[in-house]
Amino acid sequence: MITLHVELAARRYPIYIGSGLLARMPAWPEELTRAKRAAVVSNAVVAPLYLARLTQALLAQGMAATAVILPDGEAHKDWASLSAIYDHLLTQRCDRTTPIVALGGGVVGDLAGFAAATYQRGVPFVQVPTTLLAMVDSSVGGKTGINHALGKNMIGAFWQPRMVIIDTDTLTTLPDRELSAGLAEVIKYGLIRDAAFFAWLEGNIEALLARDAAALAYAIERSCRNKAEVVAADELETAKEGGRALLNLGHTFGHAIETGLGYGEWLHGEAVAAGIVMAAELSRRLGWLTEIEVARIRRVLERARLPTSGPPLGAARYLELMGRDKKVLAGRLRLVLLRAIGEAVTWAEAPMEEIARAIESCSG
Amino acid sequence: MITLHVELAARRYPIYIGSGLLARMPAWPEELTRAKRAAVVSNAVVAPLYLARLTQALLAQGMAATAVILPDGEAHKDWASLSAIYDHLLTQRCDRTTPIVALGGGVVGDLAGFAAATYQRGVPFVQVPTTLLAMVDSSVGGKTGINHALGKNMIGAFWQPRMVIIDTDTLTTLPDRELSAGLAEVIKYGLIRDAAFFAWLEGNIEALLARDAAALAYAIERSCRNKAEVVAADELETAKEGGRALLNLGHTFGHAIETGLGYGEWLHGEAVAAGIVMAAELSRRLGWLTEIEVARIRRVLERARLPTSGPPLGAARYLELMGRDKKVLAGRLRLVLLRAIGEAVTWAEAPMEEIARAIESCSG
Repeated sequence: MITLHVELAARRYPIYIGSGLLARMPAWPEELTRAKRAAVVSNAVVAPLYLARLTQALLAQGMAATAVILPDGEAHKDWASLSAIYDHLLTQRCDRTTPIVALGGGVVGDLAGFAAATYQRGVPFVQVPTTLLAMVDSSVGGKTGINHALGKNMIGAFWQPRMVIIDTDTLTTLPDRELSAGLAEVIKYGLIRDAAFFAWLEGNIEALLARDAAALAYAIERSCRNKAEVVAADELETAKEGGRALLNLGHTFGHAIETGLGYGEWLHGEAVAAGIVMAAELSRRLGWLTEIEVARIRRVLERARLPTSGPPLGAARYLELMGRDKKVLAGRLRLVLLRAIGEAVTWAEAPMEEIARAIESCSG
Repeated sequence: MITLHVELAARRYPIYIGSGLLARMPAWPEELTRAKRAAVVSNAVVAPLYLARLTQALLAQGMAATAVILPDGEAHKDWASLSAIYDHLLTQRCDRTTPIVALGGGVVGDLAGFAAATYQRGVPFVQVPTTLLAMVDSSVGGKTGINHALGKNMIGAFWQPRMVIIDTDTLTTLPDRELSAGLAEVIKYGLIRDAAFFAWLEGNIEALLARDAAALAYAIERSCRNKAEVVAADELETAKEGGRALLNLGHTFGHAIETGLGYGEWLHGEAVAAGIVMAAELSRRLGWLTEIEVARIRRVLERARLPTSGPPLGAARYLELMGRDKKVLAGRLRLVLLRAIGEAVTWAEAPMEEIARAIESCSG
């Protein structure tokens, strides 16, 4: 088992990474066990696979488990699911000491985390991610929330977990498409701040797709380490330049794809992959990346079986959808772009016409 | 104008108290004005009276105003109202820099504050309370939230305002019943930590009911000062004993009344008044208060035209409703009780039969 820590202003929390952690779970601290029970949030796909194992592990720590099982998918990251969690917590009379445990992917984690942030003004939260995307990205860093018909992740809160428990064995049941989607975020870390990791990925994409255990464990650890460092330096995304915003490489374009097609058509990681190519293409147009670098980025995403162009919504529609994004400050479109492979910047000076051209050349 | 400050771990914020502050508003800091507009949340009763004045004041600071007007009343402190705020913010394309301004009473403040806590994971928030209850209690301290069918204030977040602007002139339009309801919270400060203030109130209740401007300003200032001290010492209500929890004197009983009757039948302050009498009676049964002290408490509440007994729900129903309260920790009923007038404690050792007897003797 590997243990990393996320260092926050007020406290730190551990990320445990290892094979079989659901069965051999690290001991929970007293503040999480004193309610003698936990409320598990999971979904209809993950619960049949892993809920029994998690329940056993909780029992071994002296805790009973109550579970609320949501329908699967990004389309259900909404008020109805959140309300189902609240209803469950209230009918089970969970109090402020009862931890909420997210067992599942990013949707479950975001929903359960937002419920933890807002149930009785905040209860302890534990992440047990079971998708690659959730392991390397959404379970670490405290972003929680739900979607709104007018925009993705528009309602939410920062609420840090008390711990993240990553059992790499759960990846054995992950569908191929979701494994690839998770790799989009893994590749992102290489692009924004870790050129050596990007080069490693260029040499190991096929091993990751073949679910080589050692390769996956290494990619998860290195991704979490990158994420933990970024989060520690900018917990609430208040840095004027850089900081957490850099984690959104490809995301502003990607959110436009997800919203434009309706949530759930493309997986988040797929939309991010196409968005990364758009950001890379725009970076080339600004004179920062070479054509060869853009080709390298496109190639590694292709090999990871990810889309490298967006759907043909038209540049105008993209820009309209991007205008609703949280990254818009005082009317300007602030994007994450690449100065080089391994070096991202936040940039609000890109001319609208160049953004439109980058979108056009990478969609349809 | 009087200026108080609430000292938090990470920052401090001012409370401005004075006559005519809506017209002569203190200058707003740059972080609140740089979006050049604000989103005002108000209700159908307050907006016709004061929205124009507030809009003028914002214009004078170089800010445009967009407003969302909600229906009035505690019954509307729910998801539908919150959703209406989100819809407005999104269609107006408000971004992370746009402050949300609450213009109204406690319901508007709690809703607008929760929207500010959760819109795009948090935007700046300003309180402009127009009821006595909101001025002395709910606008200070950062508690925000909405009600759930299974319990009051069950969904929420801590989200501190950047400033609180109290224009005492707005009390001239406050209905008598709401003025009295606000006095319940004013009296509460005397009871929990300020015996001299309680004695002052015994001498000045009629002046307050007659809306004597000097008496009201003094009561508001002294109440806010007490609240600010309590909040500074225990921002997130994490103190094991005492702390912010003491502000809930009468509230656990009161919440049972509000939930048992359905939100909106009794005003919050009315339910708290009856709850204070129940807490005082229980404190007497534990040997802490004398009969004379309980009579003094009952008398000052009566003179403030507040109920001093609860509706006849039956002690069993009260206890069931109280069991859903946030103040329940690991199954025990933790109440705020009085060791003396001016000295409150949190107490989880009161026998259930004594609690039931106190309820019975103070209801029906």
